Amino acid sequence: MEFQSCFLIWDKLSAAQQRGILDSLAFRQIKRGAVIHNGSMDCTGLLLVKAGQLRAYILSEEGREITIYRLFDRDICLFSASCMLRSAQFDITIEAEKDTDLWVIPAEVYRQIMEESAPVANYTNEIMAARFSEVMWLVEQIMWKSMDRRVAAFLLEEAAIEDGNRLAITHETIAKHLGTHREVVTRMLRYLQGEGMVKLSRGVVEITDWDQLKALGNG
Amino acid sequence: MEFQSCFLIWDKLSAAQQRGILDSLAFRQIKRGAVIHNGSMDCTGLLLVKAGQLRAYILSEEGREITIYRLFDRDICLFSASCMLRSAQFDITIEAEKDTDLWVIPAEVYRQIMEESAPVANYTNEIMAARFSEVMWLVEQIMWKSMDRRVAAFLLEEAAIEDGNRLAITHETIAKHLGTHREVVTRMLRYLQGEGMVKLSRGVVEITDWDQLKALGNG
Repeated sequence: MEFQSCFLIWDKLSAAQQRGILDSLAFRQIKRGAVIHNGSMDCTGLLLVKAGQLRAYILSEEGREITIYRLFDRDICLFSASCMLRSAQFDITIEAEKDTDLWVIPAEVYRQIMEESAPVANYTNEIMAARFSEVMWLVEQIMWKSMDRRVAAFLLEEAAIEDGNRLAITHETIAKHLGTHREVVTRMLRYLQGEGMVKLSRGVVEITDWDQLKALGNG
Repeated sequence: MEFQSCFLIWDKLSAAQQRGILDSLAFRQIKRGAVIHNGSMDCTGLLLVKAGQLRAYILSEEGREITIYRLFDRDICLFSASCMLRSAQFDITIEAEKDTDLWVIPAEVYRQIMEESAPVANYTNEIMAARFSEVMWLVEQIMWKSMDRRVAAFLLEEAAIEDGNRLAITHETIAKHLGTHREVVTRMLRYLQGEGMVKLSRGVVEITDWDQLKALGNG
């Protein structure tokens, strides 16, 4: 799978713009757990995921985390190049949740093309609107949804990503995704186990009653 | 103050684009309290505030509210025209917090111009990035900040908008901005009063100790 086929508006670029991107493009292989982009400390560039999984999160001053969105094959990460958007005033950290192959387009190269190309600017718009929708969904979750439902929804999301009912994930990791404490997650998981929805063992959460878990998580 | 001077990229439009906007533009005078845009029910169009104050908020199924952002003179509301962004999948309600004069650009007219014009698409990008930053700020507030600090921060924001220390605002209204219950706000305000930061009377919150309130709200 080549860059050109992953970058969905490739055909709408001029020959000079295509050359500008290919000349500056970097291919990187990121190990699971590595932090690729760190808040406002750097302007890494636009990331295009070839294969793998990234997580974008924010950090509190006390070091607490909450996942803002996740990126999969062919997804583009805009906010790792937020220096190219004057009005983007927030710090996101991006780490690899799985071994990830990705391309990096330097922010300055992309910004220049975006400035002159309506298709690229509109494409960027659509990516940002999609992320915006995810953050709005998150606001609704943390405002209106009880933590048992959020844990259930997160397990369903994980199961969909992993395509299985046996999730190798710690309570600590779930807590970081949801922006809460490990103890809270443990209490919620024990409640779900008591209701027969999951079975817990060391480092593993196994979904045992999909219908009930869906009723809770999607409710 | 004319539309042309409020619409910051007017000079970057072609004569045909300028004519397209002026021919379809509507000027509206909105009464305080009126709902201008209602979630996904309509695609009102792009709003450009001439003078006044708008509030964008989301609603839970139970009718609870939380303010997402506010718009002032010369601000543009994009998400009242979110039908023009395929990837924008969320419902925002917009109401006038004060009597407001505004212009409405039909979504379809703006979308067509944005599609062909890089300056308009990039301008739209910057507006969205600014709103995105506000929502990210909101996520940080509701995740990491205790309610007494959020109430203090909200009072400081209101005082800056009204340019005074006497705020005519009910506990219920503050609760709707912050996405909490009136009782919680009342408890917090009484705490602030006990600490000498505010003085409460019917429908009025008066700030009496700015330094202490700032230390709390900005902390």
